[in-house]
Amino acid sequence: MEVEGGVKVGGGEKDKVGGAVQQVNGGLTNDGLSAIMPGWFSEINPMWPGEAHSLKVEKVLFQGKSDFQNVVVFQSSTYGKVLVLDGVIQLTERDECAYQEMITHIPVCSILNPKKVLVIGGGDGGVLREVSRYSSVEQIDICEIDKMVIDVSKEFFPNMAVGYEDPRVTLHVGDGVAFLKNVPEGTYDAIIVDSSDPIGPAKELFEKPFFESVAKALRPGGVVCTQAESIWLHMHIIEDIVSNCRQVFKGSVNYAWTTVPTYPRHEQIYIFSYFEQSTLFGVIGFMLCSTEGPPVDFQHPAYNIDEDENSNKSVGPLKFYNSEIHSAAFCLPSFARRVIDS
Amino acid sequence: MEVEGGVKVGGGEKDKVGGAVQQVNGGLTNDGLSAIMPGWFSEINPMWPGEAHSLKVEKVLFQGKSDFQNVVVFQSSTYGKVLVLDGVIQLTERDECAYQEMITHIPVCSILNPKKVLVIGGGDGGVLREVSRYSSVEQIDICEIDKMVIDVSKEFFPNMAVGYEDPRVTLHVGDGVAFLKNVPEGTYDAIIVDSSDPIGPAKELFEKPFFESVAKALRPGGVVCTQAESIWLHMHIIEDIVSNCRQVFKGSVNYAWTTVPTYPRHEQIYIFSYFEQSTLFGVIGFMLCSTEGPPVDFQHPAYNIDEDENSNKSVGPLKFYNSEIHSAAFCLPSFARRVIDS
Repeated sequence: MEVEGGVKVGGGEKDKVGGAVQQVNGGLTNDGLSAIMPGWFSEINPMWPGEAHSLKVEKVLFQGKSDFQNVVVFQSSTYGKVLVLDGVIQLTERDECAYQEMITHIPVCSILNPKKVLVIGGGDGGVLREVSRYSSVEQIDICEIDKMVIDVSKEFFPNMAVGYEDPRVTLHVGDGVAFLKNVPEGTYDAIIVDSSDPIGPAKELFEKPFFESVAKALRPGGVVCTQAESIWLHMHIIEDIVSNCRQVFKGSVNYAWTTVPTYPRHEQIYIFSYFEQSTLFGVIGFMLCSTEGPPVDFQHPAYNIDEDENSNKSVGPLKFYNSEIHSAAFCLPSFARRVIDS
Repeated sequence: MEVEGGVKVGGGEKDKVGGAVQQVNGGLTNDGLSAIMPGWFSEINPMWPGEAHSLKVEKVLFQGKSDFQNVVVFQSSTYGKVLVLDGVIQLTERDECAYQEMITHIPVCSILNPKKVLVIGGGDGGVLREVSRYSSVEQIDICEIDKMVIDVSKEFFPNMAVGYEDPRVTLHVGDGVAFLKNVPEGTYDAIIVDSSDPIGPAKELFEKPFFESVAKALRPGGVVCTQAESIWLHMHIIEDIVSNCRQVFKGSVNYAWTTVPTYPRHEQIYIFSYFEQSTLFGVIGFMLCSTEGPPVDFQHPAYNIDEDENSNKSVGPLKFYNSEIHSAAFCLPSFARRVIDS
């Protein structure tokens, strides 16, 4: 498969440069890779002005520019292949499992017999892979805005893109907010929002109108999980998100967190043609909310996917998630508990 | 107070250079600060050859060379003051609470009425500060090898060094292994080992003879907590440590973990005049063991320090630890559970 609009670097294909693709210069001096150390990829983000995180680049495998962003894939020396969008690391092969499994199974294991699931963002297919484990699920919709991310994942990240192979999956390439507005009321049992950060253009995704669209698209007692920042970095933002969710969702509203070792990898939502880093230095948070209806007790999973013999085994065993770690994710440090539970 | 053998930079004291102190050159081109980006401090460690983590340096406050290591304190732009030993970040003011509280309260809250506690390493005083919360404790011994670390903490990190002000504290400057050998059998209720990593010269601290010294120094049913690596990075090492502990400690043997956002700060033990990084990219692990005697259920704290009106309030409220997060620390991701529990 060849990814459109990009250039696959190496393997004799280095000369095949697409229209929007820039010259690869040691992999480190172009828009896609913000260089501060020769031979290293470093990520400096305005959200964390005094901090950078660097990975050693072994080889740049792909560079392209989609309608939305610069897309880069490089081979790191210790974390496998790494996907970078607009200079920000999105995922590494080594640690993607923690994020994908937690953002998927915390909400979906909190209800019984989910049939229809929507993923917003998640173009790499990792969340699809996790949703495909549920034998009860009949329909998996995904709305991803950037086709290049999907193509790049299929080319370079087969362990995530495998999610697309499930026949229950329907891919919609487009704006997630618009997609959600056209969803008939009460359609989904669960919605997983793989969003970017609530600072900048994506901030609407953490405000009431978006949550209202989500709530409308869910059945009574349906669940949503959305990325919700690190308790270490942006406590005031979390406080606002929790407040918004409490106003919109009339069932349960909970905050959970987990760790991702290097780059708490996380998908983009692409809705606003804007991409931001949400690597949270080892910690990532989730908002778990349910609509009015059958009560949902997020802290105690209703379903144990590990013990279900009917679950889809073709995508391999779970690496991170289990029922204990599901419950533990809701135990907060004291400083966070004081703010969130108040 | 003036720290011996070092130089306090700034405040007109820049010319007062001690014997072993090097010229400060923008704070970034000397042994104490390994430079890869101008104006940034970057940490590259042979244990994690393909990864670096960088903090922006606002101002170097202190540089010195003790008998054991280079000691640097700098002001970072986002994490407050930072302590660096031999080029490796040890702690930041912003996130020290998580490590200090967890390594202290998980073991000490697992027993009732502790009277004698030993800290090995922990020269900054942070663990002392946490131990000082317990009203039942009558004697707190600390054995730290490097006096400069103690002095630097008293000068630049008063919120940690406050631990030394407790009249129950006795400071022993020296080798922790030697100190432990001279402790009468059954002396301590709890021992906290703030150790460096089990790769390199400090590896003995994770082997049977050291654990045997610890077990001997503990009373029956006494507890020890020791730093034990990240489940993400060194699973095979943890497997060996768990195996060694199971052979030595005839009570409970458990593994717990927690997150520290930027540089999972952690003290050095200094025992072998060797210093290594144990920043684990957001995740740090602990071994919790008890000796034969009254049984200890580490996963369910016996004592709730948060609710004890007699606990020492002069060091401020707990920021991270609570009974829920104590229990949650023992819930492991599936990949780690398969190895540790097998």
